[in-house]
Amino acid sequence: MADLKAKFLQVYAVLKSELLEDPAFEFADDSLQWVDRMLDYNVPGGKLNRGLSVIDSYKLLKEGKELTEEEIFLASALGWCIEWLQAYFLVLDDIMDSSHTRRGQPCWFRLPKVGLIAVNDGVLLRNHIPRILKNHFRGKPYYVDLLDLFNEVEFQTASGQMIDLITTLQGEKDLSKYTLSLHRRIVQYKTAYYSFYLPVACALLMAGEDLEKHVDVKHVLVEMGTYFQVQDDYLDCFGNPETIGKIGTDIEDFKCSWLVVKALEICNGEQKKVLEENYGKPDPSNVAKVKALYHEINLQGVFAEYESKSYEKLTTAIEAHPSKAVQAVLKSFLGKIYKRQK
Amino acid sequence: MADLKAKFLQVYAVLKSELLEDPAFEFADDSLQWVDRMLDYNVPGGKLNRGLSVIDSYKLLKEGKELTEEEIFLASALGWCIEWLQAYFLVLDDIMDSSHTRRGQPCWFRLPKVGLIAVNDGVLLRNHIPRILKNHFRGKPYYVDLLDLFNEVEFQTASGQMIDLITTLQGEKDLSKYTLSLHRRIVQYKTAYYSFYLPVACALLMAGEDLEKHVDVKHVLVEMGTYFQVQDDYLDCFGNPETIGKIGTDIEDFKCSWLVVKALEICNGEQKKVLEENYGKPDPSNVAKVKALYHEINLQGVFAEYESKSYEKLTTAIEAHPSKAVQAVLKSFLGKIYKRQK
Repeated sequence: MADLKAKFLQVYAVLKSELLEDPAFEFADDSLQWVDRMLDYNVPGGKLNRGLSVIDSYKLLKEGKELTEEEIFLASALGWCIEWLQAYFLVLDDIMDSSHTRRGQPCWFRLPKVGLIAVNDGVLLRNHIPRILKNHFRGKPYYVDLLDLFNEVEFQTASGQMIDLITTLQGEKDLSKYTLSLHRRIVQYKTAYYSFYLPVACALLMAGEDLEKHVDVKHVLVEMGTYFQVQDDYLDCFGNPETIGKIGTDIEDFKCSWLVVKALEICNGEQKKVLEENYGKPDPSNVAKVKALYHEINLQGVFAEYESKSYEKLTTAIEAHPSKAVQAVLKSFLGKIYKRQK
Repeated sequence: MADLKAKFLQVYAVLKSELLEDPAFEFADDSLQWVDRMLDYNVPGGKLNRGLSVIDSYKLLKEGKELTEEEIFLASALGWCIEWLQAYFLVLDDIMDSSHTRRGQPCWFRLPKVGLIAVNDGVLLRNHIPRILKNHFRGKPYYVDLLDLFNEVEFQTASGQMIDLITTLQGEKDLSKYTLSLHRRIVQYKTAYYSFYLPVACALLMAGEDLEKHVDVKHVLVEMGTYFQVQDDYLDCFGNPETIGKIGTDIEDFKCSWLVVKALEICNGEQKKVLEENYGKPDPSNVAKVKALYHEINLQGVFAEYESKSYEKLTTAIEAHPSKAVQAVLKSFLGKIYKRQK
């Protein structure tokens, strides 16, 4: 596994140097340096789960057959395309959310020399994906399907981001807009497609599969992505900041979190008033009142129940799949996130 | 011509309604409204030259044969893809440049309800292009070439934007970095590819041509695009704001404009000092001094000479092309921009 990650990181270096020599653009010293630094700052510093899972999934689809060096390289390149996509979203999201830190360092746009140039850097990151795909997959029979896949998933993610942004605008005036079905829609589009479906879809294409025959796989992965985001919302409030690596601010930020949505569903009139008066305010005393309310209505218990039910439902859905190899892929994903603490 | 434009606008309505019914995303009322309004605000309000020129070019390539309704629709759809691309760049550029107005109205991100959500709206605009292409070209033999073309041109444009942005950063410290060759590089990548090469390349693909055999056409169009941007730089300072629909701020913004580059080339030591002291400052008195200098060194005359020489050179290059149909396409482009006032 450590070996796999080391190999994966080597592929990053190859892809980066190809991008810096792209014949479609005449680089000069300053632009070369800019892109080089921008990539190193934004692309490889995350957990790399999404990227690595393309290789994992492809391996499982090959049912234990040893992968060739070329297969490992190509699966890694697709994994990196997803990491590039992630970097693109994060760079732009941080600007829109006026965030301060990301992965333990200042957000890219916070660097004094960068500022709003980061908007174009986000665009560049996005543009690198089809360059990587063209460099390595142009001759493959599934090339056009790869392009379609990345285009569709990016469209869904941007659409999810849109509903998240306009929901927060409206939620600030009227908390009752935050419902479970809205939360589900945001999460499904904004997170699940690119984080869960995309890596497996890449592996399926590389294995010669037709994605239209795998709608059920998509459904399971979107469900899993939803469960993953609910965990994220839960950990933002109840997780250990030292374990999750950040201090959650969903309450202060008026986020349409699973917790507030669930709370609104359970609360009586009195309790709802507490939420309305305290949710989305920066003062620690307001945040403390919201947290006290969450304890009062036992949201931790509600979450525990949601978690075990989700696990059960997902397992049943996975076991209904006709292919053992696909089952293995899905189970491996589920195993990685079930009861995670970070 | 008026008829053609009316038809072209009808196609916009069709494409928009398809996007608002895209099965890859479940729209709700508020997201539907948001995208609808965002599109109407940003996509169709320009001169539409880029979009219309796809139909024009395709017609000329067909050498007077009557186009079918389907051909007109498809050429229009490609034209709209370029207008969408343009809208995407403008929405994001306006944020990065902190512009105020665009096409005679406030920039999209300046609307109180929009703000930095405009970053994601730009991303959405960009994402609509492959949706349109998929809806109407998925079965065509040139579908994958279309995707590659749009990807390559977008990459070039974003790279051009990058050198423009980092040049401005450095120029602020040292005006002497602004040279004619740098200006040329910025313009070629940032403007010429998508505004001039892309429409013709779309028409060539629709006509069944192989783009790799048309490198000479690309060269002429990139030259023409460079000439076009020099006009733009000129009009930013010397054009009529009511005619061009905006108040130019290149001087205040420290832009690497053809005017300042040319001025630096012509100026004596004394005059250079005036530029260094006044270029890139927001105060109207500084701007006035730069403009006075431009008059003093007769930049208007220098531009007029540049304009007629460019016209000559382009005409010679066009007439050297073996195909009369391609010549007609290129001449039509040149005719539209020669001595333009807006």
